Amino acid sequence: MRTTIKDIAEETGFSITTISLVLNNKGESIPKVTRDIIKKAAKEMGYRPNQLAVGLIKKRTKTIGLIISDIRNVFFSTLAKAIEDECHKHDINLILCNSNDEHKRDIEYINVLADKRVDGIIYGMSSDSDVDKATESFELMNDYFLPFVMVDRYIDSNMYFSVSTDHKYGGYLATKHLIEQGYERIGCVTGPIYLKDSIDRLEGYKCALEEEKLMYDDSIIVEGDYTVESGIKAMEFLNGKDISAVFAFNDMAAFGVYNYAKKNNISIPKDLALVGYDDIFFSEILETPLTTIHQPIDKIGTLSVKILLLLIRGNKLRKKNYLLKPYLTIRKSSGIK
Amino acid sequence: MRTTIKDIAEETGFSITTISLVLNNKGESIPKVTRDIIKKAAKEMGYRPNQLAVGLIKKRTKTIGLIISDIRNVFFSTLAKAIEDECHKHDINLILCNSNDEHKRDIEYINVLADKRVDGIIYGMSSDSDVDKATESFELMNDYFLPFVMVDRYIDSNMYFSVSTDHKYGGYLATKHLIEQGYERIGCVTGPIYLKDSIDRLEGYKCALEEEKLMYDDSIIVEGDYTVESGIKAMEFLNGKDISAVFAFNDMAAFGVYNYAKKNNISIPKDLALVGYDDIFFSEILETPLTTIHQPIDKIGTLSVKILLLLIRGNKLRKKNYLLKPYLTIRKSSGIK
Repeated sequence: MRTTIKDIAEETGFSITTISLVLNNKGESIPKVTRDIIKKAAKEMGYRPNQLAVGLIKKRTKTIGLIISDIRNVFFSTLAKAIEDECHKHDINLILCNSNDEHKRDIEYINVLADKRVDGIIYGMSSDSDVDKATESFELMNDYFLPFVMVDRYIDSNMYFSVSTDHKYGGYLATKHLIEQGYERIGCVTGPIYLKDSIDRLEGYKCALEEEKLMYDDSIIVEGDYTVESGIKAMEFLNGKDISAVFAFNDMAAFGVYNYAKKNNISIPKDLALVGYDDIFFSEILETPLTTIHQPIDKIGTLSVKILLLLIRGNKLRKKNYLLKPYLTIRKSSGIK
Repeated sequence: MRTTIKDIAEETGFSITTISLVLNNKGESIPKVTRDIIKKAAKEMGYRPNQLAVGLIKKRTKTIGLIISDIRNVFFSTLAKAIEDECHKHDINLILCNSNDEHKRDIEYINVLADKRVDGIIYGMSSDSDVDKATESFELMNDYFLPFVMVDRYIDSNMYFSVSTDHKYGGYLATKHLIEQGYERIGCVTGPIYLKDSIDRLEGYKCALEEEKLMYDDSIIVEGDYTVESGIKAMEFLNGKDISAVFAFNDMAAFGVYNYAKKNNISIPKDLALVGYDDIFFSEILETPLTTIHQPIDKIGTLSVKILLLLIRGNKLRKKNYLLKPYLTIRKSSGIK
């Protein structure tokens, strides 16, 4: 049976008002001996305050929302784990919202989270969010006075907070490595073309080519959507285009490349070198382990929570967009020099 | 700016009390024309009720808690996705609690979720939960009058609700298949020995052996903990024990077996046949795709939410333990007959 303030009143003989004041640390005028009796009784009787009532009074619920596109994607589940761990350290609860990569569900969730009076939102927006849609989400959160931090996917803007990987640098590292391994015609399986994280990786790819005075050829750049299936489809398109290597813009798409290669007797890395992006757990244990760009997922999760908590407490932060450096993890799929 | 009842009062000229009554559907005595004006204004002004206040009054928060051991494990992230999808259909929010497989964190989360006045809990208990620890959790939830449904891991009891796979049948299917493929000395990498889901799989293994009049030899049964590492360690132990096949009690441990095999030039399935358990996404795209027992994860998630919602609404359900049938998915790792 849950102990109520009424139970403590009955047990101690003090009034409900007195007990409520003491337990809410507002009973300065009440004698210390009374306060001690009440606090002792509350502890012994296992009293725990109703957090809905506390939330109404304090205007803080110690709950934040996490909107992400697909928790089954290992990148996002690892991120969610890091975010939840950091929240746990600060006694914050996390409401999980899975948008299935649909902007309209992002909007729906922002409304619901606002109704629940969450203190803030960590926002991994859906992949169909172009600038207009993203702006719609941001304005809605602003209307609700809800602090938020974009995570992973972001819009480059001085108005909003974001924590992400420096994808331009990541794209550069991946491409540079393939060039150093001796590959020159490198096909790309990108993410959705309107997403900044995909645009940035492609920018990095172009930079690395330019540095080596190699031609950029857009006929070997295929738009994907970060799924295994899109990796397979891209290969159907790229096969016969005389490429010697592929840079897949995430590991899931790279798994699609493996899948296609296996079915078509293409040996990786002998016939085709491959570099992925993310460094999710499975990339390491594949029969031909995947060379990939390691994203600092845990750091992204931890930092996004830390920034959000600062915003919730009303701190002003000058820096808005936090870009964390990725690094290259060399395994077998990119060949031996 | 969030619209309050006060704003609607100012806009329409009616009192705060009148508006509050109408918006809480309690204004039967108020003229319909007034009610219509207020409702129209609330809609136009984008009024949304404060769910903390609604929760305090209705004693329902339309929020449930999900306690699971590790969201990074693909089994659990797939389960969480299915649970969240089903919740979303019923306008229920989900608080995600990641226990890191520690019972003491289970207890901590149950307390926190009770404080938040969740309507119920979907409880995937930590793997270090023996019967005593599990009972401690159950009693705590009962003390809080919190309905709960155990998911995946469960205690066989007529007192508590659970949704799980029929693991005895799954263990039987896996072993039977290997025997039919011609393997007789089948090593096992189990889960923790005190967990019912592991005990059941082992029971199924024994049944299949018995049916074929094969001897059970406990020297080739190794306790693991459902991690990749435990699969590797088990192989270090099993190597040299003259086994021709391995039944890993989950796919993650099977990945450990692959890993060990690769490093030790053991060819799967030529030198060693392998069957896993779970059928997580990656098992299909491995270079030697894994034969495995398919768990109906989506169904487990959906059904657990449905049962919990019935319990929250006060329904009495006679049946307590729901066991869903798994099936065998044959791929290359178990050899060609």
